[in-house]
Amino acid sequence: MRVDGKAMRTIWAARDGVVGILDQARLPHELVIVELTTAAEVAHAIRSMQVRGAPLIGAAAAYGVALAMRIAPSDAALDDSVALLGATRPTAVNLRWALGRVRAALLGREPSERARFAWRLAAEIADEDVAINTAIGVHGLALIRQIAAARTTPVTREHPLQVLTHCNAGWLATVDVGTATAPLYAAFDAGVPLHVWVDETRPRNQGASLTAWELGRHGVPHTVIADNTGGHLMQHGRVDLCIVGSDRTTATGDVANKIGTYLKALAARDNGVPFYVALPSPTIDWSLSDGVAEIPIEERAASEVTHVSGRLEDGRVATVQVTPDGSGVANPGFDVTPARLVTGLITERGIAAASRAGLVALFPEHAAERERGHGAR
Amino acid sequence: MRVDGKAMRTIWAARDGVVGILDQARLPHELVIVELTTAAEVAHAIRSMQVRGAPLIGAAAAYGVALAMRIAPSDAALDDSVALLGATRPTAVNLRWALGRVRAALLGREPSERARFAWRLAAEIADEDVAINTAIGVHGLALIRQIAAARTTPVTREHPLQVLTHCNAGWLATVDVGTATAPLYAAFDAGVPLHVWVDETRPRNQGASLTAWELGRHGVPHTVIADNTGGHLMQHGRVDLCIVGSDRTTATGDVANKIGTYLKALAARDNGVPFYVALPSPTIDWSLSDGVAEIPIEERAASEVTHVSGRLEDGRVATVQVTPDGSGVANPGFDVTPARLVTGLITERGIAAASRAGLVALFPEHAAERERGHGAR
Repeated sequence: MRVDGKAMRTIWAARDGVVGILDQARLPHELVIVELTTAAEVAHAIRSMQVRGAPLIGAAAAYGVALAMRIAPSDAALDDSVALLGATRPTAVNLRWALGRVRAALLGREPSERARFAWRLAAEIADEDVAINTAIGVHGLALIRQIAAARTTPVTREHPLQVLTHCNAGWLATVDVGTATAPLYAAFDAGVPLHVWVDETRPRNQGASLTAWELGRHGVPHTVIADNTGGHLMQHGRVDLCIVGSDRTTATGDVANKIGTYLKALAARDNGVPFYVALPSPTIDWSLSDGVAEIPIEERAASEVTHVSGRLEDGRVATVQVTPDGSGVANPGFDVTPARLVTGLITERGIAAASRAGLVALFPEHAAERERGHGAR
Repeated sequence: MRVDGKAMRTIWAARDGVVGILDQARLPHELVIVELTTAAEVAHAIRSMQVRGAPLIGAAAAYGVALAMRIAPSDAALDDSVALLGATRPTAVNLRWALGRVRAALLGREPSERARFAWRLAAEIADEDVAINTAIGVHGLALIRQIAAARTTPVTREHPLQVLTHCNAGWLATVDVGTATAPLYAAFDAGVPLHVWVDETRPRNQGASLTAWELGRHGVPHTVIADNTGGHLMQHGRVDLCIVGSDRTTATGDVANKIGTYLKALAARDNGVPFYVALPSPTIDWSLSDGVAEIPIEERAASEVTHVSGRLEDGRVATVQVTPDGSGVANPGFDVTPARLVTGLITERGIAAASRAGLVALFPEHAAERERGHGAR
C-alpha cells in the first residue's frame, strides 16, 4: 500500500541473495529497512516479530529456505532450515503450509537447481498472497457496500461507516494489501466514507503501532482505542461492522486470532453487530474441527506484558516496566473465537458461512478431508 | 491493608488541617506520601487520580470541604468547595453522595463550628467506608468458601481458587480493605488457597500498577494479564470466579465500572463463570433504572491512550508514546455491564440478585424510591 504516497511491500527480493524487510518492531516511530541474507536471520526476524502476521511469516519462511539453499542445497540442509524456520511461531499454520510447499517442491529438484528455484518459488508465494488479499478486498468491498446501504442512518462523510478491527491484519501482516484491511482499503479507495476503530492490542500494541500507522500513512480516517473500549462503543451503536484477521481457522470455522478477538466477537453478538473474519484460504487448517480444544496457543514472553515500548519525549525509543517487581504475568498470544460468534468468513473465493458446509461450498477440493478430521460438530 | 508488614490506609488526618494521601499516580514504582491543605489541592488530587476509586474519592471530597471550611466557613464558600470538588469526576456517584451529606450537615451548623465538625464528619465517612468494606469481605468470604467447596477439582495450594478481577477496586480505591478485594483479602487471611488474575486495565493500567502492587505487598498470589486474556482463560476453565467493583450501580443492578468490565462479564456468561460485583451501597444510584442509557460516561484525556508510564531500566519513571503521530484516540473511562450478566451484587448487607427486587430486599428503606425512577424494567 502507500506510505505517504509511495507504494511499498513488507518483503521483497532486494538483490541476489538479499531479502529486504520493514523492521516492524521499530514502527510506528522509525521506518527501518533490514536486509536478511541467511535462514537464521530470517528465523530471528520472525521470532522477534520484525516480520509478523500469518501470510507474511509464510512468505518470509519461504525466502528463508531459499537463502539456506544458496549456502548448502542438500536434503539435510533443506530439512534443517525447514525445522529452524518452522519452530519460530507454533500457532501460525501458514508457516508450516509455506515450508511444506517449498520443501516438497525442492525435494523433487536437483540440489544444483534448488537455490534458484526456491528463490523464484518464494517470490511466487509472495505474489500469490497479494493476489489472494486483493480478492478478499473485492468480496469485502461488496459486503461493506451492502452493510452501508442497509444502515438506518445514511453513510456520509459526517456519519461514516464505523468498522472495528483488532490487532494488525493489515498490509504489514501480509506481503501487501492485508487481510482484515483489504476490504477497508478497497472501500476507502472506492470512496466509501469510512472510519476505523483500531484496538491498540496489548500486549504488543500491534493495533496502536502498526494498524494505526498503516491506515494513517494511506490516509484512512481512524481512532485508536484501548482493547477494553469496543464493547462500550457497540452498546452505543457506534460500530457497524467488525473485521478481524485469523492466524488459523478450523474446517468448522473456529478462528484463532490475536488474544482478545473472542471478547470482541462476544460483544458484537450481544449487540447485533456483524462480525467478519478475513482470511486467505492457506490459513484454514482442514484437519481441525474444534478450535478451542485443538489449536495450540503460543505462550509468549513475559516481558511483552511487563514492559511497553514507545517513544520518549526526546524522540528516543525506550521500554518502560509497567508492572511491580515480583508480580508474575501470563501471556497467551491468541484466543479462539467459536464459529457460532462469526457472521462470515471473507476468503479470496467469496464469503463463507463459518461452518464446514460454508467452507466446503467455496473450497470443494477439501470436501474429502472431512473424514480425516476429528468429526463434524 | 499491609504494605510489606506495615498497616496503611489511603487517606488519613495527618495533623490539624493536613490530610495525608498515597500518591497513587506514582505507584507501583515509588511509594510517595502527599500532604493536602486546601480544597483545590484535594480537587487536583482527585482529577489527576493521585486518589481514585469511588469510595476513596468520596472520603477525599469530604476532607476537601473540611479544609475549605477552615479557610472560610460561609455558605458561599461551602457551595464553592462542593461545586469545585463535585466537578472533578462526572461518573462517580459517591462523590456527589459524600458532598451532599457534608453540605447538608454543615448548613445546619453555625459557621464557627463548621471547620471542626466537617473534619470529624470526613473521618467518620472514612471509617464508615472501612466498616462497609469489611462487611463486604465477610459476605464475600462465605461466597468464596461456597464456590471453592462446589468446585469439581478440590481447591488446594497446587490448585487454588482462581479469581479474575478488573481495574483496581482494591484497598487503594477505598479508604482501606477495598471492595472487589475485600472477599479476596478475607479469604487469603482465612487460609483459603487463592490465585488472582489481574487485568492490567488499559489505558491507565490500574490493575498492573495498583492491584498487582497491593496484592503483592499483602502477599496474595497473583498474575498480571493483558485485558485481552480473560476470555481465553475462561474458555479453558482457568477462572472460577470474577469479582469486580462498581463506580455506579442502578437500582435495577446495571453496573458502571472501569471500561472493559462488560467484556469480561460477557465472557463469564459464555463460559458459565460466576460474575460478582462488590459494591458499597452508597454506590447505588436509586434514581436510575437503565445503566446503558442513563449513566454518563466520562471521556478522559487522550494522553492516557497515546502514552504509557512506567520505569526505565535506570530506575527513572518515564512516559512513552505508543501511537503514531497524527492518529486520534477515544478514551471513555467506563462501561456499563447490564444486570442480566451479573450473577450477584456483594454489598455490606449481604449478596443481592442484580435486580430491583434483589436490591430492595436488602435495602428496603429505598423501596419507596421505586416510583421516582424511570420505571422498572
